[in-house]
Formats: sequence, C-alpha cells, structure tokens
Amino acid sequence: MSLFYLPTISAGVKYLDEEESRHVIKVLRMEPGDEFTITDGRGFFYQTRITSIKAKKCAFEILEKKQIPKKDSSIHIAIAPTKNSDRIEWFVEKAVEIGIDEISFVLCQNSERKTINLARIEKIAISALKQSQQAWLPKLNSIKPFKELIQDGADQKFIGYVDEPTSISLKSLALPQKKYLVLIGPEGDFSKEELASAIGNGFKKISLGSNRLRTETAGLVACHTLQIINS
Amino acid sequence: MSLFYLPTISAGVKYLDEEESRHVIKVLRMEPGDEFTITDGRGFFYQTRITSIKAKKCAFEILEKKQIPKKDSSIHIAIAPTKNSDRIEWFVEKAVEIGIDEISFVLCQNSERKTINLARIEKIAISALKQSQQAWLPKLNSIKPFKELIQDGADQKFIGYVDEPTSISLKSLALPQKKYLVLIGPEGDFSKEELASAIGNGFKKISLGSNRLRTETAGLVACHTLQIINS
Repeated sequence: MSLFYLPTISAGVKYLDEEESRHVIKVLRMEPGDEFTITDGRGFFYQTRITSIKAKKCAFEILEKKQIPKKDSSIHIAIAPTKNSDRIEWFVEKAVEIGIDEISFVLCQNSERKTINLARIEKIAISALKQSQQAWLPKLNSIKPFKELIQDGADQKFIGYVDEPTSISLKSLALPQKKYLVLIGPEGDFSKEELASAIGNGFKKISLGSNRLRTETAGLVACHTLQIINS
Repeated sequence: MSLFYLPTISAGVKYLDEEESRHVIKVLRMEPGDEFTITDGRGFFYQTRITSIKAKKCAFEILEKKQIPKKDSSIHIAIAPTKNSDRIEWFVEKAVEIGIDEISFVLCQNSERKTINLARIEKIAISALKQSQQAWLPKLNSIKPFKELIQDGADQKFIGYVDEPTSISLKSLALPQKKYLVLIGPEGDFSKEELASAIGNGFKKISLGSNRLRTETAGLVACHTLQIINS
C-alpha cells in the first residue's frame, strides 16, 4: 500500500502536487476510480478515490477520514550533527521509522559541524513517514545552542555521556509514559562544562550500554530504548 | 583510544599489517615506546608497546593480555540482503556496534538480491568492532538458502512477518539469557510457504512494533530488543 503525504488536505486541497501526481500516474499507473491513502502528518489518514488525472495534477475525493490519537508519551532527541552528514540523515530516517516525536539539532562546544540542511532533513522524514505508514510527522527543529536546549521542560531529561563510568543505563532510569528529552553529543562528546550545566538544569547522565557508540547510533539506541519501555 | 585488529596476534605475529602500520605512523604519528591496544577479535585485548617502525611495518611487544569472557546469551540475525546493498551494510555496521554475535544472509523466494560481498561485509564489521572497542568479532556467514537456515538449533527461534496481525511482539516472547535466531525477510517479505515451514521447524512469528519497518531497520530493532532484554 502506498501512502501519500499532503499537509494541505485538512485545509481543503483535493489534488496531489506535481511530484506525487507523477508517481501515481507513471509508477503506480493508477486511473480515475482507483483508491489510495493520504496522511496530513497531523494524525489523520484519508481514504481517497481519484476523480481526474490532468497533466501533473491528480485530483481526488475523500471517502473516509480516520484519526490516530497522539500517544501520551513523547520522545524528543536533541542530537549534535555529525561531521559526515549522511550519518545524521540516517539517524533521522531510522528514528522516524521506529517512531520519534521530535528531533532537534544541538550546537555544542565540540561540534565539528555547525549547520544542518533542514529542508533535506524534512524530506527524509516525510519519506520515512510514508514508508513506515504513520500519521504523525515528528516535529523537526533547526539547530539551537546547547544552552537554549537545556531549558526544555520535559518530564524526564537525559544526557548521554561517554567517559563517565558512573552513568546509569537509560533503561533503568526511564519511567513509562513520560515526555522525554535525550541529549546526544558530537564525536568529541559534551564538554565538562556542558555536562555540569545540563545536570544543573535537571538532566540525568545516562549510559547506553558498554560499547562505545557513534553519535547517530547512540541517538537511535536511545530512541528505541524509550520505545520499548513504552510498548 | 585507537583499537587495532590483528587476528594473528594469538599465533605469535608481533607487527601490524601495512595499512594499520601506515595509520599508526602517518595519522596517529606514534613512535617507538608509544603504546596501543590490539584485539584478536576472539575475546582478547593486548596492551602493546611499539619496538620499531620500519617502512610499512610497525613492530610491538606485548605488555599485558586481558580476556573478555563470552556472554551466555547470543544473538544471531539471519537477514535477506536488501536490493540496495548500502542498506544491508548499514545494518552490519550498526548491529556490530550495538553488539551482535552472528550474522547470516538468507536467500528467500522474494529476495531481490541473491548475492553478498562477504569480504566487504567483513571489513565493515571489523571497522565497527574497532570503533565500538569490542574484543569479539561476530561470526559472519555467507548467504544460505532459507531451508538450510531454518534447521539451526538456537534456543529461541523467531521469524519477523509483516502482514500478520496475530504476531506477538519479540519483547514479550524473548526470554533472557538464551541463544536466539531471528529471521528477517526481504522487501517482499517471506512467502506463506516459507512462514509455514519455519513454524514447522520451531520458529515463532514475531512483530517488531506497529510501524512498517524496512528490512535493515527490522534487523536492527530485533538485535537491540534482544540486547535490552539481556542487559
């Protein structure tokens, strides 16, 4: 089953954009009368039927509308962009597939990359949303300074820190059905000052297992650990 | 800390190969007297000291040898190679980082790719082993027919199956401290006959959550779920 993404459907738009229309006509070879599903990325699935196919514009009517309630828990990962941007893009794809609610990018003292292409990140997230057949597109935030991110008001706030044998595992510290924020640092880890100021703002140091994980792997492992605790 | 991989160290070899020697000299700029750690990938870490640096050959002496015991549980994932081989290579890198014991590749009725470059897979696994600072290189098996793989004698055997609302989650079925085998199918899933013959051989159908996961994501999610149950 193909799922299409059309955020403007809730505002009354009843045709797919040029790129998705081309996919319907050229790849799926659909015709008027054929049905497909659309999500607005805000919790709704629409069952629709093609009414007309004009050049570059596939129009449809809505047959049924189904609401997927938002979960009580929410997973927000704030991660430092990796030097190689493929790696952070891979994190976004996989975290969306598995199920994440919010992704932020954090600028740290040891960050090797200080920018993020948010338009590209959004495209990857939408593609993963459609692939994994979900109705809620995660919130994607642009890059913010570390100091700003640690002001966040989540129920449980964690900071991954590698060189800290005293850290307790995320699995033992996370309680079910909460709003979580997990900070994941860059290749060179958070600085001692950043760690101290996060702890001063209510964050707990966590370990993600005994192996040394890359930034993007740590982000995904944190996301999936919280998923498991809440499933 | 850089970790080097030298499987022949246990047979008495006391110098790094050309590529690793170049890394020590040109990138890390080490000199005689400097120390580094080597693993044989079979459970040992060796603390070593450079004795001489000749062209393309870095010789060392062993200062200390430390054994990392093998875990009681073991995770074996048998996965269908993905059409795009980047995706299966990504799975190998991440599964090794997180901690997997054995990887097999399975040839199914709906497989779109029927071969695997095992030399390249091994290189990726070694690189992930060094990166994540581990002493046990997972066993890597070449591609095998589905019928052969389902003869395996693991304690708990699972098969991921997408279009089966009756599947129970891996998290609920997996018991701690066992030897597990999980079969993960290709883009087109296992066939009904394959599913039936796996079940006839003691496999249990599992679900990996409500989202539709790509092959490589399903493999990693299965691996990490079992890791969490055993940590």
